Amino acid sequence: MNYQQFFADRIADLRREGRYRVFADLERQAGSFPTAKNYRDDNVHDVTVWCSNDYLGMGQHPKVLEAMCEAVQRCGAGAGGTRNISGTNHYHVLLEEELSGWNRKEAALLFNSGYVANQTTLSTLGNQIPNLHIFSDALNHNSMIEGIRQCKAQRHIFKHNDVEDLERLLASVDADAPKLVAFESVYSMDGDIAPLARICDVAEKFNAMTYCDEVHAVGMYGDSGSGVCERDGVLDRITIVQGTLAKAIGVVGGYIAASKTLTDFVRSFGPGFIFSSALPPAIAAGALASIRYLKNHNDIRERHQERAATLKQRLTAAGIPLLPSVCHIVPVMVGDAVLCKQASDDLLRRHNIYVQPINYPTVPKGTERLRLTPTPLHDDAMMDRLMAAIVDVWGQLGIRKAA
Amino acid sequence: MNYQQFFADRIADLRREGRYRVFADLERQAGSFPTAKNYRDDNVHDVTVWCSNDYLGMGQHPKVLEAMCEAVQRCGAGAGGTRNISGTNHYHVLLEEELSGWNRKEAALLFNSGYVANQTTLSTLGNQIPNLHIFSDALNHNSMIEGIRQCKAQRHIFKHNDVEDLERLLASVDADAPKLVAFESVYSMDGDIAPLARICDVAEKFNAMTYCDEVHAVGMYGDSGSGVCERDGVLDRITIVQGTLAKAIGVVGGYIAASKTLTDFVRSFGPGFIFSSALPPAIAAGALASIRYLKNHNDIRERHQERAATLKQRLTAAGIPLLPSVCHIVPVMVGDAVLCKQASDDLLRRHNIYVQPINYPTVPKGTERLRLTPTPLHDDAMMDRLMAAIVDVWGQLGIRKAA
Repeated sequence: MNYQQFFADRIADLRREGRYRVFADLERQAGSFPTAKNYRDDNVHDVTVWCSNDYLGMGQHPKVLEAMCEAVQRCGAGAGGTRNISGTNHYHVLLEEELSGWNRKEAALLFNSGYVANQTTLSTLGNQIPNLHIFSDALNHNSMIEGIRQCKAQRHIFKHNDVEDLERLLASVDADAPKLVAFESVYSMDGDIAPLARICDVAEKFNAMTYCDEVHAVGMYGDSGSGVCERDGVLDRITIVQGTLAKAIGVVGGYIAASKTLTDFVRSFGPGFIFSSALPPAIAAGALASIRYLKNHNDIRERHQERAATLKQRLTAAGIPLLPSVCHIVPVMVGDAVLCKQASDDLLRRHNIYVQPINYPTVPKGTERLRLTPTPLHDDAMMDRLMAAIVDVWGQLGIRKAA
Repeated sequence: MNYQQFFADRIADLRREGRYRVFADLERQAGSFPTAKNYRDDNVHDVTVWCSNDYLGMGQHPKVLEAMCEAVQRCGAGAGGTRNISGTNHYHVLLEEELSGWNRKEAALLFNSGYVANQTTLSTLGNQIPNLHIFSDALNHNSMIEGIRQCKAQRHIFKHNDVEDLERLLASVDADAPKLVAFESVYSMDGDIAPLARICDVAEKFNAMTYCDEVHAVGMYGDSGSGVCERDGVLDRITIVQGTLAKAIGVVGGYIAASKTLTDFVRSFGPGFIFSSALPPAIAAGALASIRYLKNHNDIRERHQERAATLKQRLTAAGIPLLPSVCHIVPVMVGDAVLCKQASDDLLRRHNIYVQPINYPTVPKGTERLRLTPTPLHDDAMMDRLMAAIVDVWGQLGIRKAA
């Protein structure tokens, strides 16, 4: 076999389908988010980022940066080992305490990413609990899908956010078999939210554990900001809350929060946890500072929701087609891979507005989109420029408008 | 099913077998490594760490800390997204260029950890290359095993470092089938090194790709420090070099270096890469500074080897049984899970020396050990104290001495 030829052919296929990803080379500018430097064509341009998952701009918050630098100066760069072999730092311990309290659980466990948190926790439960049945929402994130696929559990996919379908599937399985229902609170590509209380009702009826991925909600929903489970008053009904420190918290890493016993079980049996070097102390310190700030600042969450609502209103008024998002995510529909990439390119090159195109396999073919994420730091002037640019590009490319 | 009871029972089993892991709560002290603060029994103790994977102490190097703080102040805390969606920072681009050059490959790709680099790369190749056969060393790290297990490739395990067994297995498979041989350079628990040139000979004979995990060698071997592949002059014969930024580099993260096409293929098809938030800019900046320093400082590598050789000599002279390590790792054999834990506890409590016990499943039952990792910063006085403490604990616990 000619390996190089094989790889080259597959890459050529991606290009032909308009799915080849080109990464924008950015230099974030602490203090002037959402503005960033963009290295392209041997030049550096100032661009406004409209697709960051630093949803609240905490990635540039002075308290977070100060905590990180202080920890770097105090404890050094890396953790020096896995959590078990010399890699547990006091900042990890403090952050896990903070996360457990925030989520009103007995314990929490850090992972190197939200991806690893999902993959490791779900596959570990599936491998270790004999005869486990996992019921998974059809639109769950790749990290959950991979975790579930990679284990021995029997997998059942229920229709997206469809509690009746979930109930039907739960009822179809041996009543005594161990069960876990896995879902997200906010679905990040469409911007819809799961009916958490009703999922809990059904799960409890069939004695199933519940696993809720809050990565697109952490920091942004609920009075203290821990997520939609808090907002909807169901935290005590969720067996395992999973989240990320890389989006609204503004740093990097993932976590679960659950009972002491369950957390200890994943800590003791999860290979992706056991065998990974721990996150640097400064990362834990930054996340800790960010969470402590967000717990006491509902104002940032209110401003965030206002910005998202205003942008949706303005796009709708201009006839730009949106998905009916009920959260801070604003999915602008294009519906064609090549057009979507072109719209993104034109926004960048002609307007210095950066929005990455979202194509298959992240979303189904025919639903390609630009996914806008307005933050509390996107002001009216930025929104004016975005609106003018979108209207211009839509006109130039003849992209379909709303009916 | 009573889930809590199930988890509690499994945890109780671990305790009974002496395998329950208790993490040492440390606070690393930049500037005084290998000394650290240890939080225990409601008190804080100064301990000397003898089991860090910050093998060269780069985790406290002023150039690394300065680069990290500068990047935090300049670019902020997190990357703000996946590499594709607003998360590529210019520091990532520079670090990937540095890594590819260092490993004399056309390209390199960053991952959130060495674990994810192994798991994602191997499972992606196995899933995407039809009918791939993967030949895996029997002592490969869990991250490689999981990656290979989770994909469609056919798996063949060859005896540890046994080139004849590898050849026999390669010959048993269809000559035209695509093949990959996966192995490590330094095996971290025993301290032995793979016969890289002979593995390449056999792989080339059967037109197999080669995948070499250098995580315990990066920064420490070869004239410019890129690893054992460099030292042994086989870099151009290895298809994929994999490594970590969390050990001798002193920060966190993982990478592969390979041809442009192969790297682009993993970048385009690897779910653990595509769907993870990128490493913070400051992490990439710190790793970059560390590598640039290490490339030009063979003195630190020479001192490292001298320290390891001296410690092995002294332990052997004192009749403490060692595995015959040919690298910087010093495995002191105890051979019993409970005794091993006890020895570690006594060293910590009575001598303020921290060495984590290594038990099953990390090593086979009956080969439990203390794995010492002397660094260039462990001076003679520290070694004197370590020797006295080990001799004391060995005597107190009646642990078997060398024949």
